[in-house]
Amino acid sequence: MSPRVTRREFVSAAASSAVISRLPKTSFSFLAEEKVPLSANPSWKEQGVLNLANSPYAKLKNVPVHAVTILDGFWSGRRAANVKTSIPSMGKLLEVNGRMDNFRRLIGKSDAPQRGPVYSDSDIYKWWEAIGFALQSGDNSALRALVENTAKDVMAAQQPDGYLNTYYVRERAADRMTPKTQQWGHELYCMGHFLQAATAYYRATGDRALLDTGIRFVNSFLIPSYGPEADKKPLLSGHPEMELALVELYRMTGDKRHLNLAEYLLRGDSRIALKPENYVYHFCGKPFTSRTKLEGHAVRAMYACSGATDYYLETGDEMYWKTLNTLWSDLVSSKMYITGGVGARSDGEAFGDPFELPNAQAYTESCAAIGNMMWNWRMLAATGDAKYADVMERALYNGINSGMSLSGNLYCYRNPLSFDPSTGDVIRNEWYDTTCCPPNLERTFASLPGYFYGTSKEGIYVHLFHNSELNWKLEDGTPIKIVQKTEYPWKGVVEFEVSPVVPVSFTLFVRIPSWSDSTAISVNGGLPIDSIVRKKDPNAGGSNNSSSVAIYKIPKAGEYYPVKQRWSPGDKVRVEFDVDAKLIESNARVVENNGRVAVQRGPLVYCLEGLDQPEGTSLADVSIRSGKNLNAGFSESFEKDLLDGVVTLKHEGTVSKASGARSSLYFSADAPASSSSKVTLTFIPYYAWLNRRPSPMQVWTPLQRS
Amino acid sequence: MSPRVTRREFVSAAASSAVISRLPKTSFSFLAEEKVPLSANPSWKEQGVLNLANSPYAKLKNVPVHAVTILDGFWSGRRAANVKTSIPSMGKLLEVNGRMDNFRRLIGKSDAPQRGPVYSDSDIYKWWEAIGFALQSGDNSALRALVENTAKDVMAAQQPDGYLNTYYVRERAADRMTPKTQQWGHELYCMGHFLQAATAYYRATGDRALLDTGIRFVNSFLIPSYGPEADKKPLLSGHPEMELALVELYRMTGDKRHLNLAEYLLRGDSRIALKPENYVYHFCGKPFTSRTKLEGHAVRAMYACSGATDYYLETGDEMYWKTLNTLWSDLVSSKMYITGGVGARSDGEAFGDPFELPNAQAYTESCAAIGNMMWNWRMLAATGDAKYADVMERALYNGINSGMSLSGNLYCYRNPLSFDPSTGDVIRNEWYDTTCCPPNLERTFASLPGYFYGTSKEGIYVHLFHNSELNWKLEDGTPIKIVQKTEYPWKGVVEFEVSPVVPVSFTLFVRIPSWSDSTAISVNGGLPIDSIVRKKDPNAGGSNNSSSVAIYKIPKAGEYYPVKQRWSPGDKVRVEFDVDAKLIESNARVVENNGRVAVQRGPLVYCLEGLDQPEGTSLADVSIRSGKNLNAGFSESFEKDLLDGVVTLKHEGTVSKASGARSSLYFSADAPASSSSKVTLTFIPYYAWLNRRPSPMQVWTPLQRS
Repeated sequence: MSPRVTRREFVSAAASSAVISRLPKTSFSFLAEEKVPLSANPSWKEQGVLNLANSPYAKLKNVPVHAVTILDGFWSGRRAANVKTSIPSMGKLLEVNGRMDNFRRLIGKSDAPQRGPVYSDSDIYKWWEAIGFALQSGDNSALRALVENTAKDVMAAQQPDGYLNTYYVRERAADRMTPKTQQWGHELYCMGHFLQAATAYYRATGDRALLDTGIRFVNSFLIPSYGPEADKKPLLSGHPEMELALVELYRMTGDKRHLNLAEYLLRGDSRIALKPENYVYHFCGKPFTSRTKLEGHAVRAMYACSGATDYYLETGDEMYWKTLNTLWSDLVSSKMYITGGVGARSDGEAFGDPFELPNAQAYTESCAAIGNMMWNWRMLAATGDAKYADVMERALYNGINSGMSLSGNLYCYRNPLSFDPSTGDVIRNEWYDTTCCPPNLERTFASLPGYFYGTSKEGIYVHLFHNSELNWKLEDGTPIKIVQKTEYPWKGVVEFEVSPVVPVSFTLFVRIPSWSDSTAISVNGGLPIDSIVRKKDPNAGGSNNSSSVAIYKIPKAGEYYPVKQRWSPGDKVRVEFDVDAKLIESNARVVENNGRVAVQRGPLVYCLEGLDQPEGTSLADVSIRSGKNLNAGFSESFEKDLLDGVVTLKHEGTVSKASGARSSLYFSADAPASSSSKVTLTFIPYYAWLNRRPSPMQVWTPLQRS
Repeated sequence: MSPRVTRREFVSAAASSAVISRLPKTSFSFLAEEKVPLSANPSWKEQGVLNLANSPYAKLKNVPVHAVTILDGFWSGRRAANVKTSIPSMGKLLEVNGRMDNFRRLIGKSDAPQRGPVYSDSDIYKWWEAIGFALQSGDNSALRALVENTAKDVMAAQQPDGYLNTYYVRERAADRMTPKTQQWGHELYCMGHFLQAATAYYRATGDRALLDTGIRFVNSFLIPSYGPEADKKPLLSGHPEMELALVELYRMTGDKRHLNLAEYLLRGDSRIALKPENYVYHFCGKPFTSRTKLEGHAVRAMYACSGATDYYLETGDEMYWKTLNTLWSDLVSSKMYITGGVGARSDGEAFGDPFELPNAQAYTESCAAIGNMMWNWRMLAATGDAKYADVMERALYNGINSGMSLSGNLYCYRNPLSFDPSTGDVIRNEWYDTTCCPPNLERTFASLPGYFYGTSKEGIYVHLFHNSELNWKLEDGTPIKIVQKTEYPWKGVVEFEVSPVVPVSFTLFVRIPSWSDSTAISVNGGLPIDSIVRKKDPNAGGSNNSSSVAIYKIPKAGEYYPVKQRWSPGDKVRVEFDVDAKLIESNARVVENNGRVAVQRGPLVYCLEGLDQPEGTSLADVSIRSGKNLNAGFSESFEKDLLDGVVTLKHEGTVSKASGARSSLYFSADAPASSSSKVTLTFIPYYAWLNRRPSPMQVWTPLQRS
């Protein structure tokens, strides 16, 4: 790729191989094709996770990943493990499991048969995307080589007509893009991930070879032959993903056809009729705007919502916005776990009914939690409303964060909220034949710096908190540096040093998380002034007596606190959140949680792991005791050698011993009550569970009110 | 079938058709075959649901279905609907849905393509079995004609080698009996049901034509080519069912090869290796005696346990008995619903982990509850232990009984313990493409009289209670008549008139259900005497003073009460069970039921249906209130016009109104408590739910202890 491996070089290399002779001679017409022009405003270096710079309905713009340097703290170890362990070891596993040989067999470099499920190509692409984001945080020749060494073979496997897929080839070529394959075959899904990977890699390196390959698939293969027009074949998303990729492509090409194709996929084409249950399962094929609830395959639904929000950000389509709000309300009012995980049902990896949120049986696929974060990131961009950042943080710190082991080489597909190893379930694994989650987690951790800030015309939004340094600019172009010093989430204090290159007026919007019951904020040691009003002095007579009064706005949980002033280099903002441990209940309709509470401290959901409790204590028998002040009763300590450093919580709870009758499955309600005794319970953050030996775990524990 | 349609007649009919020419000329050698001799002791007329007359390890023997006449009462309407509506309408639906055409296309009588899933043949066979049992209760020429009209075509479709299946034919013939097809193709499953149907029909009519067809499949097709021997091909049960059928066949033929083949299927053959998860799912393929828990597909597991118990009844194999006890304990201690339903998980229609018993999501397939009854019937035969009859009654009155609508033409596949129609689920349906449950329910209701009594060397066991008349004999051959008069389960009194043809000594074992907290029993108006002992008179001095004392045994719930005496015609026994409504709790490990109770009255589990509650009452908001005496607080009334006549229960409970915060999905545990007010709750028997307009339903309701 340019400059190291240009596409032209790759083509030469391919042309000198024996394969070329098998392809029709006339098929390389694309060699002479003009490159599609890519917008230079902003340049590839200035594009964020999403390039919203020119999106008319994006209130907030993204900040490039490289603009934020994450320093020592909560995420630094995770991100180091991602780059040092996860990405390299996943590369080896993809190789060992034939994911690259699938491409090589198509170019005569391998005799191995096709391996893996239909969507296996996407494993490579998501892994590339992870590398692309990692490269955006800093040059790394070893990682870059991983892409270069594999991309050649992948690009060489692209068909003359632009089609690229290793499954529907040879003996399966007749099934390519049939209505049935479009439904189940993941061809567009794979190429959506290809485009996302190519985009991340382009934004890291400026190398557009991969992107050109993806554009060729869209412009040469899809657009000429597929679409709503009567003379074209119909298209079905199957597994939403291409929608996101197309809108993002549109943001680079400015080519309306890319946006329109995304809209067409979101709308569905009645010429491909699905069974009623498959409109539900696939979450596509009928107008997105006809949806009224989250249902079906959770990852599909989250990706569809993300793509639909992307479409809204470009068009402001009111029907989309209405639908997105309806679905989002459905999510947070009845279908999201406290961990930000979504998708309750194993059967169909699906959303359940409202309030169907079982704990041990929670499916809560890592990919779905990631999809939840992706969607909320887009809703946040559309509105600047902190409620979306709250959901994003919840998913990130808990249901996504749990998906990768601290060691970086074990991944969860499911992220249950209760676990018993005696069931034989193994939750953390190095490899899955459907290995969607591991590289998805890798790309998410690699892209993390891009989620810390946003800009608007009014100033800068702070979404996330961590020791870090922002080097970016206001939307008017003024360079600015913001240093965050904090031990968040372990401690509630965050100190900002705000340094525009010259004094300048703007608003710093500091997110006050919804869980922070009381928040203190100061600017250069004093209270931030929201506004100054002239007020009548009640002590003075007459109607002309009035005085200037500064109004201080009280920080409110779940909102962005606007610090609006003229900023000079070195200005300090100090925020202190309430990170005390709290007991959380859930809606009475969540039957599994009746009478139970979860413990949350700051953004972190806590859990009990059996091995931390006194020997012989069964998690099924313990209760949390509450006094009048429900949230008291937890003592905390940071244990630096435990689980890479965590704050643990201790609580004097009770453990009960069932009477004879009560150890039966069913018994008369007047059977003698159980006896109970005190026990010291130790809670750890949920994300860190199952990083030692397998042991029972639970998030929701009975509450004994006293 | 003999005498009306002999197999020979069928062959002639087939021979005159065009089809014959397509078959190899030499293939009709079985036309000349000798009929396999069938045991005449007992004769076909004297064989029960199971023919245990000569089973060495059966403590209890079955009573023929025709020996018990069920009179007016709880079951009479259900059984009338079964014969008048269910069986005839199912026959039409099977026809409309091509189940018979599947056979006819093989004999040139239909050009229709194969329809339905792989196991569709079994739909016909289970429906035949239902008719067979119905005919055992009395001649019914219309029903008999239904079998005759269809059996001709089915028998004609049998292949020359004895193979009979409509799916693995023609274009799919190459897949016949391959290891993969044995795993998933249900060939043996279908023929197991064929044999059971043929057996029921034979016991109703003495007509052995169907049975001979089944025997030909076993003797000509299976045994010569399949088995553990090195020169034979391996066999896998796939979906256990053939095991039961083969042992029952052995009970008629005495042919040890039939028993051995059942044992071989129960043992599995390592030459057909399954994936680890498929040993779990299929519940076969590895030695039954290596099983340690109930897992995998619930119907498969229940049928495997039934077949294994059948094998034990013939052989007394201790390893089998140990395994059966282990699995039964697993069932009743952690995996059975209060309704007797089993199989918690939709995913794989499977048993869940211990205590994984969700209510709304309960899969609880009707077939699995029937399998549970079948298994417990066999365990009861082996032991005479009432604990098995308890489970049987629980499943029969609740989780099976719910499976068929009162109208007789709508069936449940799933029998959840909580329901909300707003989910869009439709639970009662006329037809399923996988229509296993409907004819399974039909055969169960039709066979019901056969489950009321058992005999042992000591006397007669009474398992079930209903207005009824038994005309049978003691095991010594003495004819006996027992009339039951009762309004059970609505009322607790059962009056027996016991009339042996001549005075005779034996024990009448009356089952005291486990739910009857206090039971009164009298014989001819006085207490039954358990024994008379000579006892020292404490008031008299000296060692020779003693007196005769009659010992009365107190009826104990969950046991058979033995009334041992010399019986004369017209002797009366009166039993009064405690059928008061009771509150039942479940083990704390059943998380969905924490803090909740179910209401049970006699054998019937009750539920709340939304439409019976005051308008605007949401089931999710109501609680049952308990006083000191937990079980008080229910007023009952028999409503003859409601749901074909049921006892309803009324209770002054509470309904709560969530505060603002508490209507969120998650909220701080110190959010203001909900307010509550009184409400009159009306409970109906669970089996009768969803027989009016769809409405929310729940079995487990929060208990507010006061």
